Amino acid sequence: MGGMPASPSISYSITVRLEVPSGGSAVSQLTTAVEKVGGIVTALDVGASGGDLLRIDLTCAASDTDHASRIVDALAEIGDVDVRKVSDRTFLMHLGGVIETATKHPLRNRDDLSMIYTPGVARVSMAIAADKSDARRLTIKRNSVAVVSDGSAVLGLGNIGPYAALPVMEGKAALFKSFADIDAWPLCLDTQDVDQIVETVAAISPGFAGINLEDISAPRCFEIEARLRERLDIPVFHDDQHGTAIVVLAALRNALRVVGKDLSQARVVMAGAGAAGTAVLKLLLHAGMKDVVVCDVDGVVHRDRGYTDDSLRWIAENTNPRGFSGTLREAMPGADVFIGVSAPNLLTAADVETMAEGSIVFALANPDPEIEPALARQHATVVATGRSDYPNQINNVLAFPGIFRGLLDAQSHGIGTEVLLAAAGAIADTVTADELNANYIIPSVFNPHVHQRVAEAVRAASEAADKLAATT
Amino acid sequence: MGGMPASPSISYSITVRLEVPSGGSAVSQLTTAVEKVGGIVTALDVGASGGDLLRIDLTCAASDTDHASRIVDALAEIGDVDVRKVSDRTFLMHLGGVIETATKHPLRNRDDLSMIYTPGVARVSMAIAADKSDARRLTIKRNSVAVVSDGSAVLGLGNIGPYAALPVMEGKAALFKSFADIDAWPLCLDTQDVDQIVETVAAISPGFAGINLEDISAPRCFEIEARLRERLDIPVFHDDQHGTAIVVLAALRNALRVVGKDLSQARVVMAGAGAAGTAVLKLLLHAGMKDVVVCDVDGVVHRDRGYTDDSLRWIAENTNPRGFSGTLREAMPGADVFIGVSAPNLLTAADVETMAEGSIVFALANPDPEIEPALARQHATVVATGRSDYPNQINNVLAFPGIFRGLLDAQSHGIGTEVLLAAAGAIADTVTADELNANYIIPSVFNPHVHQRVAEAVRAASEAADKLAATT
Repeated sequence: MGGMPASPSISYSITVRLEVPSGGSAVSQLTTAVEKVGGIVTALDVGASGGDLLRIDLTCAASDTDHASRIVDALAEIGDVDVRKVSDRTFLMHLGGVIETATKHPLRNRDDLSMIYTPGVARVSMAIAADKSDARRLTIKRNSVAVVSDGSAVLGLGNIGPYAALPVMEGKAALFKSFADIDAWPLCLDTQDVDQIVETVAAISPGFAGINLEDISAPRCFEIEARLRERLDIPVFHDDQHGTAIVVLAALRNALRVVGKDLSQARVVMAGAGAAGTAVLKLLLHAGMKDVVVCDVDGVVHRDRGYTDDSLRWIAENTNPRGFSGTLREAMPGADVFIGVSAPNLLTAADVETMAEGSIVFALANPDPEIEPALARQHATVVATGRSDYPNQINNVLAFPGIFRGLLDAQSHGIGTEVLLAAAGAIADTVTADELNANYIIPSVFNPHVHQRVAEAVRAASEAADKLAATT
Repeated sequence: MGGMPASPSISYSITVRLEVPSGGSAVSQLTTAVEKVGGIVTALDVGASGGDLLRIDLTCAASDTDHASRIVDALAEIGDVDVRKVSDRTFLMHLGGVIETATKHPLRNRDDLSMIYTPGVARVSMAIAADKSDARRLTIKRNSVAVVSDGSAVLGLGNIGPYAALPVMEGKAALFKSFADIDAWPLCLDTQDVDQIVETVAAISPGFAGINLEDISAPRCFEIEARLRERLDIPVFHDDQHGTAIVVLAALRNALRVVGKDLSQARVVMAGAGAAGTAVLKLLLHAGMKDVVVCDVDGVVHRDRGYTDDSLRWIAENTNPRGFSGTLREAMPGADVFIGVSAPNLLTAADVETMAEGSIVFALANPDPEIEPALARQHATVVATGRSDYPNQINNVLAFPGIFRGLLDAQSHGIGTEVLLAAAGAIADTVTADELNANYIIPSVFNPHVHQRVAEAVRAASEAADKLAATT
């Protein structure tokens, strides 16, 4: 972790149940006590607890677990205050999971039963047995996505396994429903073997119209995605790669508009050649960028370094047209764009100062970026991070709901680069010329239009690709 | 199919959109026309269609697809009637599937997002990483069941594959939700290989608290269930086997009360040694039945016949204490109970006549029983079938929702015979002594108490078994 001290956040919000005498002055001291240790009171509900006692539920935002403990201690130290119970709002929300199933039709009587289940359902099954493609019409396959993880690279937490990955995949399923009305189900796999993951996903694929791979570590994620795309007749999308790439490209298009530079002319330095970095790079090249230099932990990726890793060899052969070699720091002077998807605190303000006039810094390492945004802003014109507490958040949630909505609506059998580019364009274009400025290059995930526009663009691109494939 | 002509059923219900002149007599002729060809009008909605025309939606029950066509033809033959569109109510209900996902909490703003998803969800994941058993508390694992099929033995339709099996598994998931508030998700597998099925189910198991195997053909289903039970720490239940066995035992207990016979003394003849038959047999033996004779296609299973099949050899060694050999027909004289889970029309009324006084006939082959219930009733005191259009329907839906509810509530790690016996007892006891008679030995699936009573009995039995295991 490290980095700057975080400010209180609702995601670390606690509710403390207290008992205080109804006659004393304890109530008035509660808010002061919380504020003194840096917490923020967001709600205070008072109820009689019988006798001369008041029962108070005090909700406050803390910055982390230790901070929450200090807040509770501060409350307990007030005279006459009795701490009864401390609840964590985030944990309360996750009790029993954040999604559930629902039936689309009531099941009240024999007639309902005979249509939803036997004997009526047999006719629906026979129709699909006669024409498999009817499964897209007569079953949940029309609208369902599997969110698949092996728990090997969950958020910034690392290889925490399938059980600990579950709340994240459930949260993702909740986002699919909320933002795109897609029925997604989390499948966390008790294996990290590439062959077994491929076999498992292929085996469960008949009931789904799309596969969202999630939080699978590199380089295994490349092979898993490639083999599944080859094998299945539904789209397979590793969100950590392509979701990030799409939103980065969308933000970069708009950032370049802000500084008045052309995408095909801009010089880019990237830090990070993992799953996300590689996908970002490939999409930038597809979008027409020409001068990209990629750094991994050993410095700039260069044709003359001998790579055994397929992915690094591909990068060496397809980037760095000026044949530059050296460190990340040495690559920075004159660059128009820095994109980091790597590790915290790699750059200093002085490094950013060496960039070209009107420079753009995307410092996306999570939770702590490659350079503090406040430092980057001393010299860069546009700064973006992955964090929700700064302007210009690069957030995958902007992409995946609309992308799958569009793919499902087009009944797509796969997903190509044209779809990724269309999604990035739709996200970028959601910010109008009037709205665009250095602190607003990308819409909020709660923008009322963005998911639908992504869906429409993806649907059109996917259908056009299908039509092209049919005529050639 | 064969058997007797079916009567019109809501599960074969169609809605016909017609246009007729508003002035003429056509409207009054519609119902007559439908009834003339044996259909039943269940709804007639009239609306203006503009001009002098009426738009009429006529809903009627047919007995099968051909019959539905004859009804539409009869309507079209009326003068001035224009048939616009024919909709099948069962197909309409299955459009896009019968289940969906739902979010438990609204996702309205940044605060909601930060608790349901990142960054808040990271703390929930870390809690589970520290203690895996917390997944039962903080994720959908608390309440989720996978409904798994390979499509190899779907209803009476045979090996129709995973796509055609989907509507059935979805219907089952809808029943889980409606009757027991369980979140079940259908997984139809694109493999019929035993090893691959076992590996796939084991791989996806972390996110579920139970596995309901469904419509997997014998003998593969025995090995799949046994290997998964050995391997997983959640209950695995093949409904076609144990669901049927539980409901048969429940019905048989009550039928024996009706005829005043003792379970341990009754002589039973069974037809069918497949998945369901074997499970019924084993549960009857566990319940204390002693004199059971089983017939397969080659006649009575007998110690002296050399069996290569493990399951048949087990049956030969554990049944037929009087060492009887011969045909099904030869086994019937003097039997107290006949249980068929085999094929249509194996028995005649004369065969039933040879049974002991106060005989019980369960003819469960679907859709056409081993003997027509009307024929069986000429000589038997109690008759039950699997059909919904006769009294005493032996229906798995009585068992599986309550069984999984009880297993989930007990956080069971497995399922033993004591649980099956407890479920059967709870179903049987839902019929009170006052209510019990030859035409009411088993409650309806819409009985307001049965699922909860099964759940409570299963929970208690599972917890008692866990306690016993912990002390020994």
